[in-house]
Amino acid sequence: MDRSTYIDNIDVDLAKKTYFDRLNIKLEVEEVKVIESLDRVTAEAVIAKISSPNYNAAAMDGIAVRAGDTLGATETKPMTLEENKDFIYINTGNPIRDPYDAVIMIEDVIDLGEGKVQILKSAHPWQHVRQIGEDIVATEMIIPSKHKIRPIDIGALISGGIERVKVYKKPRIGILPTGTEIIEDVKDLEEGKIIDSNSRVFEASVIKLGGLPKRYPPHKDDYQLLKNAILKGVEENDILLINAGSSAGTTDYTVKLIRELGEVVIHGVAMKPGKPTILGVIKDKPVIGIPGYPVSAYLVFDNFVRPLIEKYIGLKEKEEELIQATISKRIVSSLKNKDLVRVNLGYVNDRLVATPLSSGAGVTMSLVKADGIAIIPQNVEGVEAGDLIDVELLKPLSEIKKSIVSIGSHDLIMDILGDILPLSSGHVGSMGGILAMKRGECHIAPIHLLDEETGEYNISYVKKYFPNEKMALIKGVKRQQGFIVRKGNPKNIKDFKDLAREDILYINRQRGAGTRILLDYHLRVDNINPDKVKGYEREMTTHMAVATGVKTGTADCGLGIYSAAKALDLDFIDVTYEDYDFLIPEKLLDEPMIAEFIQVLKSKEFQDRVQALGGYKFGETGEIIII
Amino acid sequence: MDRSTYIDNIDVDLAKKTYFDRLNIKLEVEEVKVIESLDRVTAEAVIAKISSPNYNAAAMDGIAVRAGDTLGATETKPMTLEENKDFIYINTGNPIRDPYDAVIMIEDVIDLGEGKVQILKSAHPWQHVRQIGEDIVATEMIIPSKHKIRPIDIGALISGGIERVKVYKKPRIGILPTGTEIIEDVKDLEEGKIIDSNSRVFEASVIKLGGLPKRYPPHKDDYQLLKNAILKGVEENDILLINAGSSAGTTDYTVKLIRELGEVVIHGVAMKPGKPTILGVIKDKPVIGIPGYPVSAYLVFDNFVRPLIEKYIGLKEKEEELIQATISKRIVSSLKNKDLVRVNLGYVNDRLVATPLSSGAGVTMSLVKADGIAIIPQNVEGVEAGDLIDVELLKPLSEIKKSIVSIGSHDLIMDILGDILPLSSGHVGSMGGILAMKRGECHIAPIHLLDEETGEYNISYVKKYFPNEKMALIKGVKRQQGFIVRKGNPKNIKDFKDLAREDILYINRQRGAGTRILLDYHLRVDNINPDKVKGYEREMTTHMAVATGVKTGTADCGLGIYSAAKALDLDFIDVTYEDYDFLIPEKLLDEPMIAEFIQVLKSKEFQDRVQALGGYKFGETGEIIII
Repeated sequence: MDRSTYIDNIDVDLAKKTYFDRLNIKLEVEEVKVIESLDRVTAEAVIAKISSPNYNAAAMDGIAVRAGDTLGATETKPMTLEENKDFIYINTGNPIRDPYDAVIMIEDVIDLGEGKVQILKSAHPWQHVRQIGEDIVATEMIIPSKHKIRPIDIGALISGGIERVKVYKKPRIGILPTGTEIIEDVKDLEEGKIIDSNSRVFEASVIKLGGLPKRYPPHKDDYQLLKNAILKGVEENDILLINAGSSAGTTDYTVKLIRELGEVVIHGVAMKPGKPTILGVIKDKPVIGIPGYPVSAYLVFDNFVRPLIEKYIGLKEKEEELIQATISKRIVSSLKNKDLVRVNLGYVNDRLVATPLSSGAGVTMSLVKADGIAIIPQNVEGVEAGDLIDVELLKPLSEIKKSIVSIGSHDLIMDILGDILPLSSGHVGSMGGILAMKRGECHIAPIHLLDEETGEYNISYVKKYFPNEKMALIKGVKRQQGFIVRKGNPKNIKDFKDLAREDILYINRQRGAGTRILLDYHLRVDNINPDKVKGYEREMTTHMAVATGVKTGTADCGLGIYSAAKALDLDFIDVTYEDYDFLIPEKLLDEPMIAEFIQVLKSKEFQDRVQALGGYKFGETGEIIII
Repeated sequence: MDRSTYIDNIDVDLAKKTYFDRLNIKLEVEEVKVIESLDRVTAEAVIAKISSPNYNAAAMDGIAVRAGDTLGATETKPMTLEENKDFIYINTGNPIRDPYDAVIMIEDVIDLGEGKVQILKSAHPWQHVRQIGEDIVATEMIIPSKHKIRPIDIGALISGGIERVKVYKKPRIGILPTGTEIIEDVKDLEEGKIIDSNSRVFEASVIKLGGLPKRYPPHKDDYQLLKNAILKGVEENDILLINAGSSAGTTDYTVKLIRELGEVVIHGVAMKPGKPTILGVIKDKPVIGIPGYPVSAYLVFDNFVRPLIEKYIGLKEKEEELIQATISKRIVSSLKNKDLVRVNLGYVNDRLVATPLSSGAGVTMSLVKADGIAIIPQNVEGVEAGDLIDVELLKPLSEIKKSIVSIGSHDLIMDILGDILPLSSGHVGSMGGILAMKRGECHIAPIHLLDEETGEYNISYVKKYFPNEKMALIKGVKRQQGFIVRKGNPKNIKDFKDLAREDILYINRQRGAGTRILLDYHLRVDNINPDKVKGYEREMTTHMAVATGVKTGTADCGLGIYSAAKALDLDFIDVTYEDYDFLIPEKLLDEPMIAEFIQVLKSKEFQDRVQALGGYKFGETGEIIII
């Protein structure tokens, strides 16, 4: 079995420079109509052919006069002028011709009737006259070369008498998805198959950059098929992207084929995710092998393919727009790699705080939800909570400023809130939320923590963890917790004692989750050793993940909320209603965005949508308890 | 003559709110394929139909094992496993099926041959397994409503089993240019005519926003023609923009027609430029009258039309992304209006400095060159130099950070430098440059100032104005100054004495310009009273504007540079070669962007392009004199 497990670990910037230097990029130029040139990039500086205005033009509605004639006119010594002798009426834009050389605004002209007017002030020469070339002077540079044409540029080009403009040709980007497991149609989805999504992300990204994407259908991992496809892709495009097939697995022909058909310049970059990137050349054209995991694919595209396409489009190299944020959690990083970490961002206590999202390279949703990408440079062994880090923004800062940052327990109602309000929501369990709040990382923390002694929810925890701070609880919902089991409850699960049965496979929540605390409480009450619960160590971070485990048969039972069971058409055995509330520092209650949050909680729209999920009760929803 | 000079002066935000409240905006929804949904806006939250992955999948290349079987394996006590009994080989993405529940990376597996491998570490359950729903869980919200679909969202939607998505229909925006003076083709250009450029700027802007523009050919100021065109435009579109015809001139039918056919909600907003904006409604559709000057047109579009189109597109209201900058010049503003001032921006001495560009509403180039729009709020009577003001960015901050800010004398070589380097160039004459440098507004100031006593250029001025600061001069070019006259020199101008002739109409430069100082010096030497020079008071701010005045016959002669005369095919009578140098604080000489600037000055590319202009000599170009 041939397993080429060896790949390089080249610094990202060095890899990019080495590769781009190796490429022999020749830009092609074409001429397009100015009116069709939006977003195209100029291949040369554009010089005005005519001046604008091309005549001396009235800048105001009024009368055209000879400035010299009006000398001496004052409020106490008004001057009378005669139409067609001393002045003519003109509108904005009319030519000012010899002998006239100035305009008096209509507001400053007193109409005496019979073609006569009075003025109370002399005019100075060329007043209210747009002189020839005031806007654009012939031979003046309108826009430089390598400039992306904006709407306003089109206006200036037209005014400068330009009808056609030389721009760089749009590069053609071939996109070749590979892998026997890849399918195109969701209808063909079965175990072991994956719907091709990366190639569609690339396609859309190429369009946004201004290139011409050409996407090929997914190709099987077949040596000859792939070879033909790569040759065709190189023939038909300026750049070829090959997706998947760049890790070290048995069926990865990409690197071998690029080496056979051309040259592998770099295989393996010091970036995580994105390590197994292949930067190659075939027939003088760049061919890039991109790893298959969605997040790796996206970041490799962003770090290598985007700058390459920008070169082909003719854009000058841009610097990343980075912003500094305070990282809220320790991130362990290897000295070997530059780490790219998806983060949520929020302004909390006037600091921009970055909270890492789930780090799996397969988690597309972490990119969809991310506000930015935090960069942990190579040669840095991770960062500590509180450190300042560089972040590349994925959303405008103005949007981030308006977002409520929520860190804590997961519930489906957070999705509904996030659809109504600007809300950035991190799911780390109730205790995780309390700790995040203590570190000043969030505005609100959704929690549902049972006090085993009083049977009361949340309040005692807040007292314990915030002894010196004025905190508040915004009451949320009462939600039903219970056992999520397969339809018809085939294993006949009734209570916590059943979880210790030999034939029951459980699926658990992570430590710190309120639901986990609820489980552990009941196990203790019923004197059940967690070791006896098979699957106790399989920790999921959301209710839906637990329900999905049950739905697909990899577990028999998990503790979770009713709405998760209902969403996947599973059965549900009621355990308890619990209080799912929002912890907040008292001083934030006056913030307009919190007022809006409370208003939404109380709104009919929100409550109707939550009712439709099932398993929720309202009551004190939106009320405030000061602790 | 009917002149409706009265228009309102409504606060911009109030006008917008009043108008948008009056409109009865109903958004239409359509369904599109996800793979064609880039940049469309969701009409409802999109919920995942399937989980991704939809099976438990290997996250690494390696072997699938039963975690329980591997307990006890250590480096000192390796465990041997047998293929197809204890393990199977798997690649990333392969399903992990019962009885296997963990993956060991191929790197951690020692191949013993004959289907046997050794492991040195136990596996914990579900290690290196992407569990069902790790990426996306069925029923989870992928993206909220009112969300503009990005490339990565398309990937997530596909992975969540979504094939079609409900989005808001693209609004159709009718664009109707009006005015008898407006022509479409540069070939029809003659005195009194203006090429229509605004409608093309609107067209491109609508495309960028995501609407469907429908541009009509320009219409004459004819009551019945316009009436029919407006009715057709309202019929065929969701929003109609009527350009020009919104000031108070005689031929302005727009406001009357909107009133006749519907309702004028607001006529006149407290914004400068942009005051005569008309916000109207015809047949329940918004009809907006936009003033004709390019800068007014752009800013009215940006302040009223853009937010309206965004509403129709379904986007949530965005807040302007504003940045604070130090204004470098006093701006006089009226309490009556919100002033929008185009500015150049640059980082000088770690401050973001905003320098106002020419303020005429007709000067498209001021928008093309602007880095931002400074906002002077209504109820503020101008700002003083050094005040902090809000600026809306037109260019990315990273680009602004890299730009050399040059304020001073104008020369065509600044265009060439600006094409090669990131350069933001303001033209205020040599003395203006010295004053800007004293105020810390620029990195370099191009100057050519003759010391009348020594005959030397620049150095004595620097000593005089910077007695306590270490300054440097980067030597630029020697450039030819002389009289720009019509071809063949029909008025036979030979020297400065001719300028006082009765039959000579002169065209001058503004006070503080080096060329003006040169003129005044020679007039004094020749004992000529400036009052005797006809046209002395007509001040232009660039050489090209002077040359254009001569070219079009509104003047007989102006003092200027050879290249300006040559560009417009005019004759040139030599006066002198002068030193056009770059003043810079000595401490900035070490900056990388200044090093690059000096390198460009010395480069063959630059010098060849300047030679081609004519009238320049090199010599000490790029050398540094410390003063």
